Amino acid sequence: MNAEIICVGTELLLGNIINTNAAFIAERISRLGIECYHQCVVGDNMDRALAQLKESSARSEIIILSGGLGPTEDDMTKEAVAEFCKLPLIEDAVSRKSIEDYFAKRGIEPTENNWKQALVPKGATAVPNANGTAPGIILETKKNTYILLPGPPIELEAMFDDEIMPYLQSKQDGVLFSRTVKIVGIGESKAETMIKDLIDAQSNPTIATYAKTAEVHIRVTASASDEKEARKLVKPVVKEIKARFGEHVYAAEEGVSLEKSIIDLLESNKMTLSTVESCTGGLIASSIVSVSGASEVFKCGLVTYSNKSKRKLAGVKKGTLDKHGAVSSQVATEMAKGGAAVTKSDVCISVTGIAGPDGGTEEKPVGLVYIACCVDGKVKVKECHFSGNRNKIRQLSATNALILARECILEYISKVHFG
Amino acid sequence: MNAEIICVGTELLLGNIINTNAAFIAERISRLGIECYHQCVVGDNMDRALAQLKESSARSEIIILSGGLGPTEDDMTKEAVAEFCKLPLIEDAVSRKSIEDYFAKRGIEPTENNWKQALVPKGATAVPNANGTAPGIILETKKNTYILLPGPPIELEAMFDDEIMPYLQSKQDGVLFSRTVKIVGIGESKAETMIKDLIDAQSNPTIATYAKTAEVHIRVTASASDEKEARKLVKPVVKEIKARFGEHVYAAEEGVSLEKSIIDLLESNKMTLSTVESCTGGLIASSIVSVSGASEVFKCGLVTYSNKSKRKLAGVKKGTLDKHGAVSSQVATEMAKGGAAVTKSDVCISVTGIAGPDGGTEEKPVGLVYIACCVDGKVKVKECHFSGNRNKIRQLSATNALILARECILEYISKVHFG
Repeated sequence: MNAEIICVGTELLLGNIINTNAAFIAERISRLGIECYHQCVVGDNMDRALAQLKESSARSEIIILSGGLGPTEDDMTKEAVAEFCKLPLIEDAVSRKSIEDYFAKRGIEPTENNWKQALVPKGATAVPNANGTAPGIILETKKNTYILLPGPPIELEAMFDDEIMPYLQSKQDGVLFSRTVKIVGIGESKAETMIKDLIDAQSNPTIATYAKTAEVHIRVTASASDEKEARKLVKPVVKEIKARFGEHVYAAEEGVSLEKSIIDLLESNKMTLSTVESCTGGLIASSIVSVSGASEVFKCGLVTYSNKSKRKLAGVKKGTLDKHGAVSSQVATEMAKGGAAVTKSDVCISVTGIAGPDGGTEEKPVGLVYIACCVDGKVKVKECHFSGNRNKIRQLSATNALILARECILEYISKVHFG
Repeated sequence: MNAEIICVGTELLLGNIINTNAAFIAERISRLGIECYHQCVVGDNMDRALAQLKESSARSEIIILSGGLGPTEDDMTKEAVAEFCKLPLIEDAVSRKSIEDYFAKRGIEPTENNWKQALVPKGATAVPNANGTAPGIILETKKNTYILLPGPPIELEAMFDDEIMPYLQSKQDGVLFSRTVKIVGIGESKAETMIKDLIDAQSNPTIATYAKTAEVHIRVTASASDEKEARKLVKPVVKEIKARFGEHVYAAEEGVSLEKSIIDLLESNKMTLSTVESCTGGLIASSIVSVSGASEVFKCGLVTYSNKSKRKLAGVKKGTLDKHGAVSSQVATEMAKGGAAVTKSDVCISVTGIAGPDGGTEEKPVGLVYIACCVDGKVKVKECHFSGNRNKIRQLSATNALILARECILEYISKVHFG
C-alpha cells in the first residue's frame, strides 16, 4: 500500500506556518508500513489543487490531504476532491448536528458559512472532529482513497490517531506492531553504535533510531499476520535494547513522555515535586501539568524571573545573588533547596540561565544555563552550554532539567531501597 | 518571477524531522514577492528526484532545492541536478580549499567522501557555507535557475540570508510588501464578514485572513515597483481594517505576538505583571517569558496546582475553596487578587479550570475554566467553556486569559488617562 500527502494552504506556501502536519502524518503512516514517496504543498487554489490531485492519484493509492476544510471562502479542499471525483457535495446530518452542538455549547450564533463544513462528497464518510467544527472525510473511489483532514494540528492529530489509524490498519493485510525504547543521556550516534550489530542484522523486526530534543527513540517494528505474532517478534529485541541502555531507558511504551515517566516514578515512591524556574519561565511546570494525573505528585511551581522573586519566593540569599550573579551554580542550588523547603516537596527542580538574545557577556554568554535538582535536601547542579535561539535554549534547558531530575530521583530511590 | 521548493530527504518522508526549511525559504521568497505555488518533498532517490526536476522545471523559473549535499552515498541532489541539466561535475577550487580549512581548524582528518562536497556542475557558482562543509550551488541554465542549499537549518538559513537573498533581489523588478493586522475576541468567520466588501474588491493590495488559537490575522499585501510605493498601497487598507476592528486589534506589525503587545502596553505605562496558574500550569508565564525583554515587566509566576498551594502562595481562603471548589469564579478572583498582593504587581492574571480528561463532573464538566485579571485591585472574572483535549483546553485557557488581561489593562489605562 502506498500513500502521498498533500497539504493545502497558502499560509504554508508563504512560510507563515511550519508544516508539522506533513511530518505527523508521515510518521504515522510509516509506522503502519505504508510507503510514502511524495509530500507536497499547494495553495488554496482550485486549478492547482486539481492538477495535484490528478498527478497524485495516478501514482499513489491513498491520498491524504490536510487543510482547507474551514468555513471561509478560500477553503476549497473538499470542493476540489468532489470536483476531481465528479461527485456532488451533500449535507451530512451528523456533521450538521455536531456543528449545531458546538456553537450551542459556546452560546455563539453560527454564521451561514459554518454550515459549509457539514458538506461531504456523495458516498464519502464524515469523520468526527473532537476538537473543532470541520469533520474529516474518507472517500473511497474505484482506484484511490482520499482522506481529508482539518488543518489545525490539534484537530488533525487527534483525528488521525483516533479515527484514521484504525481505518488504515483495517485496510492492511498483515499487522505491523512497534514498540519504542526511549533513552536519555546518550547521543544518537553513540546509541546507534551501541546497537550496530542489532541494526545490521535486522530484517523483521526492523530497528530505527530517531533523535528528539535531548532524547533518542529506538523503534522496533515487526510485521506479522496478527498482532500477537508481531508482539512476539518485537519482545526479545526490546528486551535486549533495554538491557544495553540500562538506566538510560526511561520508557519502552508509546504515549509515555519523559515527564510522565518522572511522575510515575514519583507516584510509585510517594514523593512530591515542585519547580523553581527562571529562564524557562514555567516551561517545566507546564510540561509536567500537561500530563493528566500530575496532581498526584506536583505541588506547585514558582517562576522566579526577577532577582527579587528568587529571594522572596525561593529564599535565595541576597549575598549569593550579589556575589555570584543570578546565573550561577550557587543560585541554582539555592533555588532548588529553597524551593523544596518552601513548598515542602521531596524533589525540587530549578533552572537559571541566559536564553538570549540579549543579556550575554563574555564571561556568561547566551546559552549558559545552570540546572539543579534537590532530592531529600541534597542538591545536584549541572552547568550547560546550549546554542540556538531563545526558545531553543529554553526548551533544551527544560528537557535537560527533567533528565537531571530523573537521574537524581533514581539515585535516591536506589539508595533508600538498597542502602 | 516564480519559484518552487524541493526538499530532498528520506527523513522528511518518514516524518523523522519537521520541514522547517520549506517554511523558512517560503517566507523569505514571499518577502521578495517571488511567487511560489509548489513545495514538495522527495526522498534520496535519483529517479524520483529526476522526475521532480522535470516537472518543476517545466512550471517554475527558479527551483530551490535543500538537502542531499552531504558527503555520504545517499546524498545525490547535486548529481541529480547535474544529470538533469546534462552537465559534468567538476571540482571547485575555492570549495576544496574551504573544506581543507574546515577540517584543519578542527584538527580532524577529512575522509575521501568529504571531497565530493567540492564538486559543482560545470558553469555553476559555489556558494560559501559559513556553518558547514557543503557549499551551496547556483546554476543558471537557459530556462531555469537552480539553487541548491545544504539541509541542516543552521547552514541553510545563514546561507540564504547572506548569499541567496541578495542574489534573488538583484534579479527582481518590483517588490512585495505586507502588513498583518492581528485581532482577538472575534472569530475568523465573523472577521471575514466584517471586511467582506474589502476582500471582494481586493486586487492590489490583496487581503487574506488566517485563524490562530483565539486570534485572527489579516494580512494586506501590495506589489509595486519599490517598497515606498507598496507601503503607500498597504497603508489606507490597514487603516480601514484597524478602524473596523477597533480595540480588537492588538498589533499591526510582523513579529508582535499577543504576549509582546501586552508587555509593551505594560512597559509604556510602567506597570508590572504576575501570574497565578492552576490548570495552565505555567503556560501563561512561559509564553510571557518567551518574549525577550519580558523581565522589564514580569515579576514572577505562581503555579498553584494543589489547593494547599493556592492557599499558601496566593492567599486563597480555605472557606472559599471549601464552599465553591477550586474551579470557581470566587477562587479565580482570590487567586488574581492574592497574587497581585503577594507579588506586589499592578496586574495579575489567574486561571483555574478542569483540563481533563479526568476530574469533570456534571456540574463542573471538563473544559470549564475561570480566568481572572486583577488590575490595581479590581478583578474581572470570566467563565469559559472550552472543548478539545487536555492541551487544547490549556492552550485556549492561556490565550483567553491573555486576551482578558489585555482588555482589563486597556480599560484601566483609558480610565486613568481620560477619567
